[in-house]
Parts: sequence; structure tokens; C-alpha cells
Amino acid sequence: MRNALTAIAGNSNSIELTDEEIFAAHEGGKLQIGLTAPLDDKRDLSIAYTPGVAQVSRAINLDPELAKRYTWASRLVAVVSDGTAVLGLGNIGAAASLPVMEGKAALFKKFGGLDSIPLVLETTDVDEIVETLVRLRSSFGAVNLEDIAAPRCFELEAKLIEALDMPVMHDDQHGTAVVVLAALTNAAKVIGREAASLKVVISGAGAAGIAVAEILLAAGITDVILLDSRGIIHTDRGDLTEIKAAYAARTNPRSITGGTTQALDGADVFIGVSSGTVPEETLAKMSADAVIFALSNPDPEIHPEIAHKYAKVVATGRSDFANQINNVLAFPGIFRGALDAGARRITPAMKVAAAEAIAGIAAQDGLRPDYIIPSPLDERVAPAVTAAVIAAAADAK
Amino acid sequence: MRNALTAIAGNSNSIELTDEEIFAAHEGGKLQIGLTAPLDDKRDLSIAYTPGVAQVSRAINLDPELAKRYTWASRLVAVVSDGTAVLGLGNIGAAASLPVMEGKAALFKKFGGLDSIPLVLETTDVDEIVETLVRLRSSFGAVNLEDIAAPRCFELEAKLIEALDMPVMHDDQHGTAVVVLAALTNAAKVIGREAASLKVVISGAGAAGIAVAEILLAAGITDVILLDSRGIIHTDRGDLTEIKAAYAARTNPRSITGGTTQALDGADVFIGVSSGTVPEETLAKMSADAVIFALSNPDPEIHPEIAHKYAKVVATGRSDFANQINNVLAFPGIFRGALDAGARRITPAMKVAAAEAIAGIAAQDGLRPDYIIPSPLDERVAPAVTAAVIAAAADAK
Repeated sequence: MRNALTAIAGNSNSIELTDEEIFAAHEGGKLQIGLTAPLDDKRDLSIAYTPGVAQVSRAINLDPELAKRYTWASRLVAVVSDGTAVLGLGNIGAAASLPVMEGKAALFKKFGGLDSIPLVLETTDVDEIVETLVRLRSSFGAVNLEDIAAPRCFELEAKLIEALDMPVMHDDQHGTAVVVLAALTNAAKVIGREAASLKVVISGAGAAGIAVAEILLAAGITDVILLDSRGIIHTDRGDLTEIKAAYAARTNPRSITGGTTQALDGADVFIGVSSGTVPEETLAKMSADAVIFALSNPDPEIHPEIAHKYAKVVATGRSDFANQINNVLAFPGIFRGALDAGARRITPAMKVAAAEAIAGIAAQDGLRPDYIIPSPLDERVAPAVTAAVIAAAADAK
Repeated sequence: MRNALTAIAGNSNSIELTDEEIFAAHEGGKLQIGLTAPLDDKRDLSIAYTPGVAQVSRAINLDPELAKRYTWASRLVAVVSDGTAVLGLGNIGAAASLPVMEGKAALFKKFGGLDSIPLVLETTDVDEIVETLVRLRSSFGAVNLEDIAAPRCFELEAKLIEALDMPVMHDDQHGTAVVVLAALTNAAKVIGREAASLKVVISGAGAAGIAVAEILLAAGITDVILLDSRGIIHTDRGDLTEIKAAYAARTNPRSITGGTTQALDGADVFIGVSSGTVPEETLAKMSADAVIFALSNPDPEIHPEIAHKYAKVVATGRSDFANQINNVLAFPGIFRGALDAGARRITPAMKVAAAEAIAGIAAQDGLRPDYIIPSPLDERVAPAVTAAVIAAAADAK
């Protein structure tokens, strides 16, 4: 344990940011429009605008498939939010969510080479959001849902997938889930266990918690317990939402009841996606060589130095500790791969393939308790995820 | 007449474009997203995304006015179309209109220094379009309506101006009208007439025709006759739409009835915005030193060489003849000026000021029959229009 703690401290290069430099960097927003061709003389103007552009519009009118080739829309990601679950800030509204969406669009460009536009909505009605995006569907080629509160996010994503003929993904669910699966795959190797044999406790049954449960089940991990604010989710509870009831039936195979204490007794893995805290004494009951992912941001469910007293592998969502679990490892490559493949859907197989690709990058570097996941800035990751998603799309055909 | 024809011929540098080069230039679309700040290390990432961005979102949540400063939205123009009146192609639909909207966005950037995003709508219902843009209102700071068919465009623009707290303008109406007024102001000088004394015939009572009539009336020109496909618009006609009936009451002070022949008898100015043709023999009845703006594109209502037999000043919408009347002279500076001024509306005074600024650029170069309007590529124009619009906004306060 001592060594691990030292390693953590050694990795703890906390970044001090002043309000001044943060606000200065956001002045005027973080995005701009660029032109892909010159507009310097009459000839350029005649090609890009009238009369030349009429040829292109006429051609698309005759063969709508040509829109994919001669506009930016088919490869443009709409980054869509209603501002109801923004970072740890909660329901702060559309306008206040926009800086996050711009940041997301910047990450899409930087890591996925994809253009994207933020569209924030002054409605939280699922059907109105679907209707709005359906009306605008010729303007973009994929939808990244972002910071939308549970349980509405599940219904919204499902309805949008049905309504739109393009890749749709709620990143707070599936981006998180993919990176968690990648990290857990490598953590299992570090502690010398088969991932499928792990007893996993997920604290938080919101967007991320449900999606993490789903991907772990898809990856063959069967002993998964979900906790919400009222305790363990099990089939005898009468207070569950529709989605939680569905997962009560698919998780908790040992039919444990109670709270965190009961759930963590003998558990191998704790995954916190709750924006809450976990009592230190409950962690003491986990198995030897446990794994703790305390992913709440900016305040992890348990401080990583404390966590290391009870776990061999610790990860957080923060950049100033080892093993940062950050969605940016997943979403640029997932969308890029889906668009490159011409896929209509982002399938479970694509998500698992993305997780394997992320895990593979760290594994090829050599795994250690303080290195189970690549850095969010690792430029090898997005191309590897892209390739894995394209391959998964090809397998499905 | 001989000289004018030669001058026209001398200016006729028709640009030959091959389909290959046109389509090659539109491959993948004409726009891209750029980042305004680096994303190269952990520090950049911590500022632009989590945790730094949370500070900015929290601040906007507490003071919504800060969204204007810390996002791109307040200076972002949504270029919106439903694809119902695209160039001369008619109702070709949203997807096929997108290349035009991308071109428009490119012109906004090139000439106005403004970022803009194309949003094309798969609905032609006015209330649905308004509802969609109202839901998205925190995503942008101005709306340029484009290629929307009359008479729906009038209702849509009016409803949007009421519903949105930001500059809204249908460019096919007002952009065209502003540049026509600029050109007519200078044409009047070339033929040695007071603009207010001119007898003007506008052929076409669609989006552009109605807006041209409106701005000419606003500029003090009283003898304006509008023609639609059934002839002169006058108060005794029982077949007029609501908007045409309104203009029947405000135009045609001599109460002329009939068609093009009757309208042009003794007229000083013909403005064609009809997508039709005008019989040569009717132009022969215009006054001496007449003015003909044959603006249909790509086929003017009358070929400029024929027009010169009957007019001293001839303008078209084409780049391969003298005096090209092109909206790009107006809309970048109008929106830039309105946004720079923090204006909530684009007022008639701003439009007239924009026309005066455009006319002033050509006048300062020295007016000739073949030079009444600056080139669409003249980089002095947008800043002059911007300054004029800002001044007009200040006057209104």
C-alpha cells in the first residue's frame, strides 16, 4: 500500500487555475467557423456561391444521397443538451450549458477530426427535443447528447435512435461506460483476476450508472450491484423507476438487500458515479486487492489517497491523480468510427470494441496499478477506437 | 448607346466553369469548425473543459448576460432555410438547399468576419419553424432567413422578429432591397435625376419585389408600380394576397391598370425580380435615359446588351456583366453592424443607411453608366456598411 500511495503522490501534479485565466480563455467562445476553400476572386465566388452552387443543389435535389458527399452535414455532429445535468452543477439551463458543449465540440475536432456544432435547447420535454432534431435532421449527420438528466435521458436517447437515421449517443451514459470497461479490463489484469469473475458495485443509478451496468453485463460480468440514493436496487423494491426496475431484474444475482455496507461486503470493485461520498469504513469490507473507481467530479466519492488504503487500483475522473477516467478517450473515436463506417446505429458491439481498443493502448505500454488507462491527451487512442468501431460495424454487416 | 454596348462587351469576362471543378470545390462541404484556443496539454484541457469550464457555466447560470461574453452564441448567425425558394431552382427541399446555406455562411465569414451555422428545416410550416428556432434560441445570436418562398416568408419573418430577442432578416427580401436602393441611388445621379422623382416599375411581387417596393417607399420614392404574374397590382384587383393588397394601397399612385406594357409606358426605371422575361417592345416605351435592373439569375429578364438599346444604365445579378447587384454587398455588414451595436432589431433606418454606405463607396470612385455599384469582392464595403448600421442603431437610441 505504501508504494501505491507514493506513486499517487508522485502523480499528483495538481493544476492551479485562476479564475482570470479560465474566463479569459472562454472569452468570445471556443469555436469558430473556417472556410475549406478560398473566396478571393470572382471565380471562387462563382464556384462556391452563385451560379456554381446551383449545380450542386440541383444534383442533390435529383439524388438526395449526394448530400453526403457535397455538404458538411453527413459528418457533422450536433452536440445537443437541454442543460439539465451539466457536469456536477445540475439543472443550470441551456445557455449556461453552452460553454461545456463548445468544449465538447473542441474535443471532437482535436481528437476525432470531426466538425460539430452545439445546439442547446430551451425545452426539457423529450418529445419536443425529438421533434426539434427531426425537423433539423438534414443539417447534421450524428447526435451527441450531453448533460441530460436521468431518467429522461434514457427515453430521449431511445426515441431519437428510432426517429433519426444516424448515429445517436448520450455520452454521459455510453462514453463513461466505455472508458470504465476499458479501465476495469486492465485493472482486472493488474490484480490477476478474470474480469467476468469480479463482484462489482456501482454507486449511482443515473445516466452513467445504468450505462456502466449495461456495458459490464454486455462484457460478461454477471455479479453487478447497482446502488441508488435509497440503497441496493433489487426486485423487491417498490419505489423504482421503469429503467431501474428493468435493471433490478438483470443485476444483483445474489439478491443482496440493504445499502452500501451490504453491497461492498466482499466486493472486488467499487465504481462511484453518484456525485455523493462513500464512507471509508464500508470500503474496508471489500476483498483484498480491490479496485476503486471514484469518478465523481470535481470531488471523488472517496479521496484517492484514502481509497488506496483499501484498494490496489484506484482511478478518478481528475487529471491530477493517476488513472484518469475521461470520456474524451471514447467519444471522438466512437463517432468518427461510426461516421467513417457509414453506420446508422452505435451498437453495443461497437462500444465494447472501443473499450478494448482503449484498454489495449495502455496494455501495450505495460500495465501498473497507477497506469490502467491512457492519458486523455494520448493521440494514439482516437485512431485506435475509430479502427475498432469500423471493424465492429463491418462485423455486423 | 454604341459606347455603352462596347463598355458592356469590354466588361463581359464570362467565367467558364466546368461541372468537375464545381463539384470538386463542394466535396465534403465548404465549412469547418476551428478552435480559438490550444488543446495541447493537461492545462489547456483543464481550462477549456473540466474542471475549468464549470466555473464559466456556473457564472452564466448566476448571470445569464455573461453568455454573451463567454460563448460564441451571441455573435453566431443561424443561416436558416426550409428549401422552398432556392436560387432559381424553386422548392428543392432542405437537404438540397444546404450547399447554398454553406456558401452563405462562408460569405458571412469572409466579408463580415462573422461565424454562422446553416440550419435547414424539414418543415415548411411557419409556426413549426418559429417554434424550432425559439427552442434553439440560446444557441445563436441572429437569424438570417434564406430562400424561403413568398408569401410565407413575410409571415415567418414577422413572427420570428416578435418571438426572438435578436436580429432577424430574410436576406432574399432585404439584402436585395438594400443593394437595389444603393444601385438606384447612383443610377439616378448618372442620369441626372432626383431619385424621389423617378417612376419605378418592379416586375415580381415575391420576397424581393415586395421588399424593394418597401425600401423605395422608405427612401422617398413615391411612384412605384408592382407587377405580379397577372399584371399591375392595384386596389381594384380581387385576387391579391394579404401582403399584395397592402402594397396595392401604398403603391401605384397614378392608379394604372393593365400589364407590363401599361406599367412601362413612360417609366424611368425597370427592376426585374421575377424569374421571368420582359418583352423588348415594352422597354421601348420607357423614358429617355432609362434605368434597367434585370436581376433574375442566371437568366436576366432581358439580356443586358438588348437592355442597353433602351436604357442608359443597366445592371444584372450576374458577375460577367457590369453593375452586378449581389446581396453579399449588404448582409455581412448589416448583421455585423447589428451585432456590434447590440441591436435587437434590424430597422428600416439601418437598411437605408446600409444602402447609402454601399452607394457611397462607388460614388467616391466616380460613377459611370457601367459603374454604379461596387464589386461584390470590394473589401471596403462590409466595414462601411457595418459602420453605417452601427450609426443608425445609435441614432435610434
